Amino acid sequence: MTETPAPKTQRVRVKRMHQRGAYDRATIDAILDAQPLAHVGYLLDGAPLVTPTLQWREGDHVYWHGSSASRMLERCDGAEVCVTVTLMDGMVMARSAYNHSVNYRSVMLLGRARIVDDRAEKEMRLRNFVEALFPGRWDKLRAMTEQEFKATTVLALPIDEASAKIRAAPPGDDDADLDIDVWAGVIPLRTQTLDPVPDPRGRQGVPVPDHVRNFRIG
Amino acid sequence: MTETPAPKTQRVRVKRMHQRGAYDRATIDAILDAQPLAHVGYLLDGAPLVTPTLQWREGDHVYWHGSSASRMLERCDGAEVCVTVTLMDGMVMARSAYNHSVNYRSVMLLGRARIVDDRAEKEMRLRNFVEALFPGRWDKLRAMTEQEFKATTVLALPIDEASAKIRAAPPGDDDADLDIDVWAGVIPLRTQTLDPVPDPRGRQGVPVPDHVRNFRIG
Repeated sequence: MTETPAPKTQRVRVKRMHQRGAYDRATIDAILDAQPLAHVGYLLDGAPLVTPTLQWREGDHVYWHGSSASRMLERCDGAEVCVTVTLMDGMVMARSAYNHSVNYRSVMLLGRARIVDDRAEKEMRLRNFVEALFPGRWDKLRAMTEQEFKATTVLALPIDEASAKIRAAPPGDDDADLDIDVWAGVIPLRTQTLDPVPDPRGRQGVPVPDHVRNFRIG
Repeated sequence: MTETPAPKTQRVRVKRMHQRGAYDRATIDAILDAQPLAHVGYLLDGAPLVTPTLQWREGDHVYWHGSSASRMLERCDGAEVCVTVTLMDGMVMARSAYNHSVNYRSVMLLGRARIVDDRAEKEMRLRNFVEALFPGRWDKLRAMTEQEFKATTVLALPIDEASAKIRAAPPGDDDADLDIDVWAGVIPLRTQTLDPVPDPRGRQGVPVPDHVRNFRIG
């Protein structure tokens, strides 16, 4: 999050990944792996657009996908993009408005995206996307048709120029404010998965598999 | 989210707000009011950047704030930006990989941002930001100092060119797939607030106020 200056927080910034050590990269990977929701920034007629989509990481790349007719995917191919992934972990309640903040984990990836052209790789990426979210599901699904395969585009972005920001701390109040009679602390936030809702159409009574029961974000 | 073509979903798209009716604007406002987390897209040296921040709506504008030294805020002032707000409401589990999707609500706002220069307006916006999230809190806080006030910048963006996208539906499987023996349905997601954690520093035993106890996102 942007916040007022002089935050008393732990921060990890990696301007250029290839100049930094393993700890920073592990931090970045952990955030990418914890949050499938990404916001992709790209240019359309010289102006920035930000589109939400799901990302997944495999090794040194993140991937996202969509319709082959998608304007976003078309504009990202071969172009400079910014992929930002954020988890909001808590509202930080201080004794002054100025020191209010948010606990969060965020990664910003910069670079040039490219379409995954190779047929075998594209199929593998799509399979890995489903399997990363829902282990064991892919082989139970109706197989992709050729038409569906052609109608789907996968984009790749190397994890090269990346930065992570983390705030995970109590309020950073000034010492002089500590005796003020107002509640201060953190309201923790997390993504909750509720009971799965079976499709009202189709075959009924299919048992809920572990990959549904155990699905978590965060 | 981006997704494969022919989604069987309810969608609301508003390309140009001033050409559209009240229903669309109400939908957009409801999404903006439900999710403080925004991803702001802007240009730096001709390349897109996407920064997470908190937004709040007042009437026909959204606002966000940060350090007066923030590169993001500086770059957004007078420039074309894109503010995107997303709530991820559920994972949509279909019988084919292709028909998997996400239930979500998202708003994309386009336009030219401007710094709120007027002193009285800026103070009112910051107060309204805190009060919208935590009703009754502002007056209990230590008052902003002149230095804090100068160190904080508030940006405004009119809600003019806006689009909302909503998917809120069961899986859109093809009829031919409905008898496949795989669990299909929706895993609902929501932002959960956990028990507030008091600051270990400062005055202890301050009762948890309603504006903390009742805080919700979504």
